[in-house]
Amino acid sequence: MRLYDCTPAPSPRRVRIFLAEKGLELPRVEVDLAAGEQYGTAFRAINPRCTVPVLVLDDGTALGETLAICHYLEEVYPTPALFGQDALQRARVLEWNARIEVEGLLAIAEAFRNRSRGFRDRALTGPDAYAQLPELVERGRRRAEVFFDLLDAHLAATPYVVGSHYTLADMTALVAVDFAGWIKLDIGERRHLARWHRAVSARPSAAA
Amino acid sequence: MRLYDCTPAPSPRRVRIFLAEKGLELPRVEVDLAAGEQYGTAFRAINPRCTVPVLVLDDGTALGETLAICHYLEEVYPTPALFGQDALQRARVLEWNARIEVEGLLAIAEAFRNRSRGFRDRALTGPDAYAQLPELVERGRRRAEVFFDLLDAHLAATPYVVGSHYTLADMTALVAVDFAGWIKLDIGERRHLARWHRAVSARPSAAA
Repeated sequence: MRLYDCTPAPSPRRVRIFLAEKGLELPRVEVDLAAGEQYGTAFRAINPRCTVPVLVLDDGTALGETLAICHYLEEVYPTPALFGQDALQRARVLEWNARIEVEGLLAIAEAFRNRSRGFRDRALTGPDAYAQLPELVERGRRRAEVFFDLLDAHLAATPYVVGSHYTLADMTALVAVDFAGWIKLDIGERRHLARWHRAVSARPSAAA
Repeated sequence: MRLYDCTPAPSPRRVRIFLAEKGLELPRVEVDLAAGEQYGTAFRAINPRCTVPVLVLDDGTALGETLAICHYLEEVYPTPALFGQDALQRARVLEWNARIEVEGLLAIAEAFRNRSRGFRDRALTGPDAYAQLPELVERGRRRAEVFFDLLDAHLAATPYVVGSHYTLADMTALVAVDFAGWIKLDIGERRHLARWHRAVSARPSAAA
């Protein structure tokens, strides 16, 4: 297996953290998103959606989407369990993962991609051009702040996002909180979020 | 268990189709989204995110997000398997489900909610007010058309979205294609998509 990656980008970092928590190392191929390598012929042959991460299996099968890649790795390398310990926990991990992706990652991406010069006509991920919309900069930021408040309130009652074990939901949330730095949004006075962020950032996997 | 539902809405229909394919019937509580019941005190006590579907377990635990609900039901009632037959298929189902949610359902919702009078200041799901942005009507529609083309090309080579079995990915795609009718977008000349849509619509579960 090998992982198509981009070190500075948020989504592939989720997979690198996942691999580190499993104690796995995979060969990585860096895709230079800033230079537009994802739109080139060579990378499109691997993933026509022009996104990373992509996991390529030994038989050449290419798998996209962070959740799908992590789920595959979880089945092939089940220990430690990173999707939850029982049916309800696994459902909760997926519930929070979905919420963090849409209300966190997509909101921050909305604020970031609609403003940054490097994303002109690239307001959305994927092969197609979409113009930046200045109204979405403010909307995305407001959504991200609402998300930070939601996560802070939730973490007042639980050590990790789902119960007492570190899971995929924590990885997605960690990457979202760090990605928010790209729009200069920080944790501020949210003390539960700060306590959790210190704990998950102290794990060796956070450096992945 | 009981399901908080809204008959006309796309997301809870995915859960109803899932239940029908499993041969399960659950008590359903209709939430009148058109009347704003999801923003009222009673429903917020069940789901503060103001969205349906919500699955409430016998002990009162409330679970939101379609993927999480379906995954829980899959674990409790594993037959027939609707998330795929092996590790790679399960990953593919999650890959396509994620893609259909973002590139299909969210795109169509973008076109619909930013135009419809009933969604004034409700351009996004959830408890918070967001103004409609007229530019997103056209963008959402264009994204939905790109999604239809993608799905049509994909279905040229496969009977169902993932291999030779009907899965959650087909349900999400079916609901997305039917939801596109709300923005007057139809399958048109896309013949692979049309062949697949006839097949999945003919299943008794499609009426759920």
